[in-house]
Amino acid sequence: MTQTGSAGKERRATIKDVAARAGVSPSAVSIALHDRPGVSASTKKRIMKAAEELGWRPNLAAASLSGHAVHTVGLAIARPARLLGLEPFYMEFISGIESVLSRRSCSLLLRVIEADEEIDVHREWWQGGRVNGSILVDLKVDDPRIPALAEIGLPAVVVGHPSLAGPFASVWTDDAAAIGEAVRYLAALGHRRIGRVSGPAELGHSVIRTEAFDRVTAELGIQGTTAVADFSPDQGGRACRSLLLAPERPTAIIFDNDIMAVAALGVADEFGLSVPGDLSLLAWDDSQLCQLTRPALSAMQHDVYSFGADVTRALFEVMQGDGHPSHATQSPSLVPRSSTGRAAN
Amino acid sequence: MTQTGSAGKERRATIKDVAARAGVSPSAVSIALHDRPGVSASTKKRIMKAAEELGWRPNLAAASLSGHAVHTVGLAIARPARLLGLEPFYMEFISGIESVLSRRSCSLLLRVIEADEEIDVHREWWQGGRVNGSILVDLKVDDPRIPALAEIGLPAVVVGHPSLAGPFASVWTDDAAAIGEAVRYLAALGHRRIGRVSGPAELGHSVIRTEAFDRVTAELGIQGTTAVADFSPDQGGRACRSLLLAPERPTAIIFDNDIMAVAALGVADEFGLSVPGDLSLLAWDDSQLCQLTRPALSAMQHDVYSFGADVTRALFEVMQGDGHPSHATQSPSLVPRSSTGRAAN
Repeated sequence: MTQTGSAGKERRATIKDVAARAGVSPSAVSIALHDRPGVSASTKKRIMKAAEELGWRPNLAAASLSGHAVHTVGLAIARPARLLGLEPFYMEFISGIESVLSRRSCSLLLRVIEADEEIDVHREWWQGGRVNGSILVDLKVDDPRIPALAEIGLPAVVVGHPSLAGPFASVWTDDAAAIGEAVRYLAALGHRRIGRVSGPAELGHSVIRTEAFDRVTAELGIQGTTAVADFSPDQGGRACRSLLLAPERPTAIIFDNDIMAVAALGVADEFGLSVPGDLSLLAWDDSQLCQLTRPALSAMQHDVYSFGADVTRALFEVMQGDGHPSHATQSPSLVPRSSTGRAAN
Repeated sequence: MTQTGSAGKERRATIKDVAARAGVSPSAVSIALHDRPGVSASTKKRIMKAAEELGWRPNLAAASLSGHAVHTVGLAIARPARLLGLEPFYMEFISGIESVLSRRSCSLLLRVIEADEEIDVHREWWQGGRVNGSILVDLKVDDPRIPALAEIGLPAVVVGHPSLAGPFASVWTDDAAAIGEAVRYLAALGHRRIGRVSGPAELGHSVIRTEAFDRVTAELGIQGTTAVADFSPDQGGRACRSLLLAPERPTAIIFDNDIMAVAALGVADEFGLSVPGDLSLLAWDDSQLCQLTRPALSAMQHDVYSFGADVTRALFEVMQGDGHPSHATQSPSLVPRSSTGRAAN
């Protein structure tokens, strides 16, 4: 390894330097270095020669592919691919991510995976120079991703409560407070038996919501029962049926997402129960779906689009080394519509 | 540029060769070349020396970042980010893409953009070695992307009719035949005035559907009126209102996606029209939304998830140089549910 020149000693050559020396544009250099069609053989030869003379090094390749830094953010989602198409949350969340990325000419690298692949995917992306940072979602309690990805130095933001995030920055919604608001509202309408259809039990936010649900119903001295589902309308409908088949059926049910609450409208219809006359239903997220059903669904509203944008801005702060931008984003708040009403006696 | 050895003369050194020479794993080489934490300074020095001695060249960097080929597929969607969260089509389509990619350990590079940026995005992705090929969606008539991206040799598959695809392979649904089926079905139920709420007029598939709609209604001697919207529930509802305010209002309306038909259920409610007693509604795509509304929506059904998977398999054939895999995928077909019925007299 020889060093030539003096001013250049401290600075490694960039694609721009190669372009200047070869008398071509930086994008021509990028094309030549990647064997893409678009430059003549003789130009390519000149570019390769300039790269060699300047000692341009491959470890700059990823950062300089197009003559400027590559900014790509990784997101791996461990949900069945078919289910994703039905989940307004993720598309709104991704739209929010994209709203920040597109303003910065950045891209999202997206993978739908099995849960146990996720560590390998992020490791490969980061160590291979394919992402500048990642967004980690659907955290479990004691999630194995946390120690594994902290060890390799991946810049990342966790979407979830700080108790789940280990050393990573996190952006979260206060789900415990929101569950409290939901239960107190239904209790104020006279409901003494409240059901809840949750997402998968192993998810960190399911655990947080279930604990808060149990605590608040106990405080108020009312009966609270949680049935576990997986966010799909099929399982959500099934969990709803199981609650309604109990000897003392609930008069109100809270759902952990919107699509399960939409499915419950059909279940109530099957059971001949009027909503909200016989049964109150309260959705979670408040995607636009809730306003399109008849009756329109009451929901715990949060702005999922802004949440995605907020998480992405926090990730840029992490990637730029600007401290530790952890914060709670706006808490979900109650939007009463036509699917909740006074308890029947 | 010196060439050493003899067997190695024709073959360029790979990361594996560098790893073997330095006595480390290929992933350690990748980490070192990208300046990621995870290898000691002395190991890194040994790796850089081995790379230099083998004449390992940067133009292999993109293809060999992790010791094997990078397979990334690009998708740029020119829709407002907020709207994407409401559109079951794209999330199901992306889920279908992911179902094929994840089986091959490949990733999707996703960008939400302004329409006029798309050529630059694909050019930058391809020439910068960040994608191996792209999926092109929402084609316009005489779409400027076609000549521009053909020129740079981007491997791509067009989602749309071959008349829109220029030299690119394309995968499409036969929208003209499907519109014909929809109109004939409603005509058979006695409808003589049929409305249609379309997507943006400049999209190639809107043009194809509108031409077919006009042709078939003329053949049958019935009145056909198209109102243009943008796939959003707001504009879909507005277009639906404009059709219902006409002196001779339609007794049936066909929609170009599901979410606009869901919004129309609310508009019918506003107007005091029963569905399907006073007004029949026919959705398009048949995402699971259609089965969750009350009444459940009749729809032109196609399997958007499989469509996404099909397009992705075609792109792999293009990227591997296996000919020209253009084909029509399964045509949308009618699924009658409770939102269509005999015309009122």
